[in-house]
Amino acid sequence: MRLACMAEGAHEIAILESLSLELARKAGTTAKAYFRRQVTIENKTSGGFDPVTSADRAIESLLREAILERYPDHGIVGEEEGTHSADSRYTWIIDPIDGTRSFMTGLPLWGTLVGLVRDGSPLLGVLSQPVLNEVFLGAPSGTWLIHPERRERLRTRQCTELEQATLASTHPDLFAGAAADAFGALAKRCLMSRFGGDCYNYAMLAAGYTDLVVEDRLKSYDIVPLIPIVEGAGGVVTDWQGRPPLDGGQVVAGATAELHAQALAVLNGAAPGASEEPAP
Amino acid sequence: MRLACMAEGAHEIAILESLSLELARKAGTTAKAYFRRQVTIENKTSGGFDPVTSADRAIESLLREAILERYPDHGIVGEEEGTHSADSRYTWIIDPIDGTRSFMTGLPLWGTLVGLVRDGSPLLGVLSQPVLNEVFLGAPSGTWLIHPERRERLRTRQCTELEQATLASTHPDLFAGAAADAFGALAKRCLMSRFGGDCYNYAMLAAGYTDLVVEDRLKSYDIVPLIPIVEGAGGVVTDWQGRPPLDGGQVVAGATAELHAQALAVLNGAAPGASEEPAP
Repeated sequence: MRLACMAEGAHEIAILESLSLELARKAGTTAKAYFRRQVTIENKTSGGFDPVTSADRAIESLLREAILERYPDHGIVGEEEGTHSADSRYTWIIDPIDGTRSFMTGLPLWGTLVGLVRDGSPLLGVLSQPVLNEVFLGAPSGTWLIHPERRERLRTRQCTELEQATLASTHPDLFAGAAADAFGALAKRCLMSRFGGDCYNYAMLAAGYTDLVVEDRLKSYDIVPLIPIVEGAGGVVTDWQGRPPLDGGQVVAGATAELHAQALAVLNGAAPGASEEPAP
Repeated sequence: MRLACMAEGAHEIAILESLSLELARKAGTTAKAYFRRQVTIENKTSGGFDPVTSADRAIESLLREAILERYPDHGIVGEEEGTHSADSRYTWIIDPIDGTRSFMTGLPLWGTLVGLVRDGSPLLGVLSQPVLNEVFLGAPSGTWLIHPERRERLRTRQCTELEQATLASTHPDLFAGAAADAFGALAKRCLMSRFGGDCYNYAMLAAGYTDLVVEDRLKSYDIVPLIPIVEGAGGVVTDWQGRPPLDGGQVVAGATAELHAQALAVLNGAAPGASEEPAP
């Protein structure tokens, strides 16, 4: 009986995984058609500059329709159209184009993000980067880089010291005041830092080419689909207080638990090693 | 007689252009084979971190051999092996992997750069990005994006105001002291700024997706191969004093002469519009 339940659970996950991949691929194909074309760019906010493209809207509509056609009772949280309430254990978190500024400036480091949360915990995450023909899948079976012609298991680099770590973040202006000081202190401790990259930084962390990603002011849809990708490759991702980053905000992802703990300690102003939460 | 000379000149350029493309493609194929593989990373400097990979060395050797086999009297300036003296009007400027840090962190925004200088002026420039299957060629005929299956003429975006401009640079830490203040003042005036991208920023400026690239502490091989790519697309590239940036250092590239002049004025602390070098 218990075995039957487990088999059913695995079957359910396989179906949902297959749908996630299908959604991310479909959305990626649409996004690619808009990439490096004239797109309508609007400014969503009156103060500052918050670009949104017609591509974002088209992709989110496409994803919402495809999900609700299969699972009308599932919840959906998206960047452009807000929240569709859930009568189900499942909520889909979608970001049609994460990295709109990369997209606008012609750089192929944006991605379509599709995540699935079950009972409040991230279960599946997909990042599709169609210009590079890459799909990153985080699932209970691990994290996978899926090319048209091959599929490879990803694992983070076994980096355990800040002095050997490469640190990535989207833009220094994400950080203000004390957060900027904390990020600066961390960057000084690391081997090197890089800006740009958006969601793609988390994929490169999963693939073993970046060791830390630190950000601020994220929305839930910016990070939730990336949690299974980081964790399935052996990484750790939390907010700056060490909690699951389900609401976005301040995020730190590390290739190993040791490195993540050291980064948290520096971000919170504690000497590394004097952290109250030592690495496991 | 004069027509015959011109025809000979055009024929000569066609041969050199063909060689530049062949070199950049060959080097790109080699670079791609090293990308996202375990490579040996050495630290070239004792203070700080200046990574060089075995890929850099292999590619530069390959390029030097190929050039000297055809043109033993041509000069060569390269990142890894220094300067081969010239008995000719021609000097090749090569950077095997511009953007070693992008390369190391798995991001496909690095490029193999091959430039050709004739009588002290940049004549041809090639940027090869093999992961994206893209070759950018700047030549007397204009700037071209060459994909395996197509070739398109590139032109910069007709952006003439800082307030509408996207600004790109490799890393904020390139700038120190007064240069950091000047860059900060410029970034504040622009619509948005992006970091990362290395040589690829200049290609995106030529393609019309970025309007300004501003950098500091470049070497000649970081910028000389990119000059024909920017200029052939209608852009302007100088140092911060408005001179040809043949020795690297502080560089500013603009999509239009007007925008370039405004950026120079801000970088030099003059109010835009109060510049002593008004836009033509």
